[in-house]
Amino acid sequence: MLIVKKFGGSSVADQECIFRVAERCIEDYRNGNEVIVVLSAMGDTTDQLIEKAKNITARPSKREMDMLLTTGEQVSVSLMAMAINSLGVPAVSLNAFQIRMHSTSAYGSARMKRVEAERIRHELDSKKIVVITGFQGINKYEDYSTLGRGGSDTTAVAIAAAMHADTCEIYTDVDGVYTADPRVVSNARKLDTISYDEMLELASLGAKVLHNRSVEMAKKYGVQLVVRSSMNREEGTVVKEVGKLEKMLISGVASDKNTSRISVIGIDDKPGVAFKIFNTLAKNNINVDIILQSVGREGTKDISFTVAQDDRDATLEVLEKNKEILTIQEISYEDNVAKISIVGAGMMSNPGVAAQMFEALFNANINISMISTSEVRITVLIDENDVERAMRAVHDGFGLAD
Amino acid sequence: MLIVKKFGGSSVADQECIFRVAERCIEDYRNGNEVIVVLSAMGDTTDQLIEKAKNITARPSKREMDMLLTTGEQVSVSLMAMAINSLGVPAVSLNAFQIRMHSTSAYGSARMKRVEAERIRHELDSKKIVVITGFQGINKYEDYSTLGRGGSDTTAVAIAAAMHADTCEIYTDVDGVYTADPRVVSNARKLDTISYDEMLELASLGAKVLHNRSVEMAKKYGVQLVVRSSMNREEGTVVKEVGKLEKMLISGVASDKNTSRISVIGIDDKPGVAFKIFNTLAKNNINVDIILQSVGREGTKDISFTVAQDDRDATLEVLEKNKEILTIQEISYEDNVAKISIVGAGMMSNPGVAAQMFEALFNANINISMISTSEVRITVLIDENDVERAMRAVHDGFGLAD
Repeated sequence: MLIVKKFGGSSVADQECIFRVAERCIEDYRNGNEVIVVLSAMGDTTDQLIEKAKNITARPSKREMDMLLTTGEQVSVSLMAMAINSLGVPAVSLNAFQIRMHSTSAYGSARMKRVEAERIRHELDSKKIVVITGFQGINKYEDYSTLGRGGSDTTAVAIAAAMHADTCEIYTDVDGVYTADPRVVSNARKLDTISYDEMLELASLGAKVLHNRSVEMAKKYGVQLVVRSSMNREEGTVVKEVGKLEKMLISGVASDKNTSRISVIGIDDKPGVAFKIFNTLAKNNINVDIILQSVGREGTKDISFTVAQDDRDATLEVLEKNKEILTIQEISYEDNVAKISIVGAGMMSNPGVAAQMFEALFNANINISMISTSEVRITVLIDENDVERAMRAVHDGFGLAD
Repeated sequence: MLIVKKFGGSSVADQECIFRVAERCIEDYRNGNEVIVVLSAMGDTTDQLIEKAKNITARPSKREMDMLLTTGEQVSVSLMAMAINSLGVPAVSLNAFQIRMHSTSAYGSARMKRVEAERIRHELDSKKIVVITGFQGINKYEDYSTLGRGGSDTTAVAIAAAMHADTCEIYTDVDGVYTADPRVVSNARKLDTISYDEMLELASLGAKVLHNRSVEMAKKYGVQLVVRSSMNREEGTVVKEVGKLEKMLISGVASDKNTSRISVIGIDDKPGVAFKIFNTLAKNNINVDIILQSVGREGTKDISFTVAQDDRDATLEVLEKNKEILTIQEISYEDNVAKISIVGAGMMSNPGVAAQMFEALFNANINISMISTSEVRITVLIDENDVERAMRAVHDGFGLAD
């Protein structure tokens, strides 16, 4: 088997952690597998490097920032290769230049484009464990461009795709994907498998288990992902294409408090005005989530929508700047809201799912202010203070703890 | 003018130092010059990285060590580019992969082979200050191989040669090249110019101003070097091909305490034995310096020679191991010795120079135990305790303080 294993920064934070990971890789290697390891920067190295840059200038060039940050992973991989070597197994560390990991040019938020297989294949054929820097690519200018936080997941998937790996194991601080956050819902259950689409909805909804782009890429190239803990030997959760019969009605419940509701009030009731608003926001790279349109006073319309709380100020600024052109009379916002979502590949063919969710929330006396649905997801906006109660109510309502 | 400026680790040790260097580069840039800066790793970064490796394993793979160490320079150059950018001048940092700095494969002690000019030229044409990682190259395996301590000087010269730079300024903690170490000889005088050959002899004799290989390369490619202080605006010393008329009789006096004298006693007085001894040492990478052969007891020979004190144990080990084959009866060593050398391109055509040196030492009552000469250098071995006195005696004897 060809196995790609990805470990995050906390898994290689110190000498002890590095040897724990090294031994885990060697175990697979000694069992006759080819092993590729993808690593993030050690512990809080990235934060320390950012601090260094901020000491130089408040607004460091993004291009230079990536040149700086990529050293973090290079330190991790060289130390890991040394550790594996010292345990008697040949290993080699490689960075983005050595492998030719091509990425788009956007410094700090690049996307992986293509990984060349040649060098990695050569090293695997020489019976080495190959240790690769995550998070980084080289762009068309022959410069480093980083994938943004959590991008090492995507690196691992891109390499797994390029090398036709049998499995891509993503090591985290949790055992796998749960039906809900176990810290909130005590009887949450670990899932054995989940589909790419469900995982995508969970990731984008703040389940924080996998980097979103990595799941998209895994789906596109059919890479089997396994979410496992770096602290124990539990089997973890397999993310893969799930057959029709296997599809569960509901796989999990997720919440997201990083949400603000923005309301624009009194806009002209004419075709194209709503389009203009969302087009203006999109042009400013603001991702709009749930949208609710309602009839306002005197032939006007009101529109409410949610954005990530981090984008709230930028959103308000853009709207304020374009107030006249967008015919907005008033703008307001509310931070004290949160999203609760249920995700399940089986809900497509089961029309009663939304009603069942609303009933569970109604029974718990929780008010729903906005609703949004996709093929595999139903999301409602509620008061932030109700989140934990809502999670448990919905989790129990669908019998997920069974 | 195209100016290459090289700053060592202490010149970029912290934020304040980085800005001091940045301003110095910007000054040249604003005066209409093209500016390339070559940097070492910040302060004691390299030592810290070595420490990290040693925590993993006592004998880290050299290949992985270079992968680790090269991050040090990458941090320096990215921060420097940020600093220059923040002062309003465009700058770009580049590593060995981006420039294609080709080096030999010997990890930890590689030699520069060739620097490709294209990327650097492109960035200079875009009116940027170009900030380049010293100390590193990429070898034929597409791996980093470092040039060894002090190798950033060589990087700077290699880049100056490739780019046909008008001058290559090496910034150190001294004002330039002196007729003797000013800490020992208080009336030592700074030289305005010195020839490559003289500088080479001084560098190899422990003057510690320039990395030896960098001077060799500068000579080979006719790169004009300037040794200057990073702390002040003094003109420094120019190292270049010196015309016949300019040749000074003696340029300077240097000492080197890192010396051991090894004596092998009672070897067969047959042709080829001395060759065998030094051939065996050379095969073991031991550099032998002054050699003295004398007649021993009962038709045998004694040979004494000096090695760097760091090589003393290795030398004794090699000799002990080959004692029989080399027909050695006895091996002894002495650490309490030092070399004093005078260097001057003019001495070639002046036969009385050696005598003048011996006279100065004789007058100071200093005993000479071994002598070695090259075309531009005379070296004597003396008691280590006499070094400072000998330096001053020779310096005065040649009137170098004038």
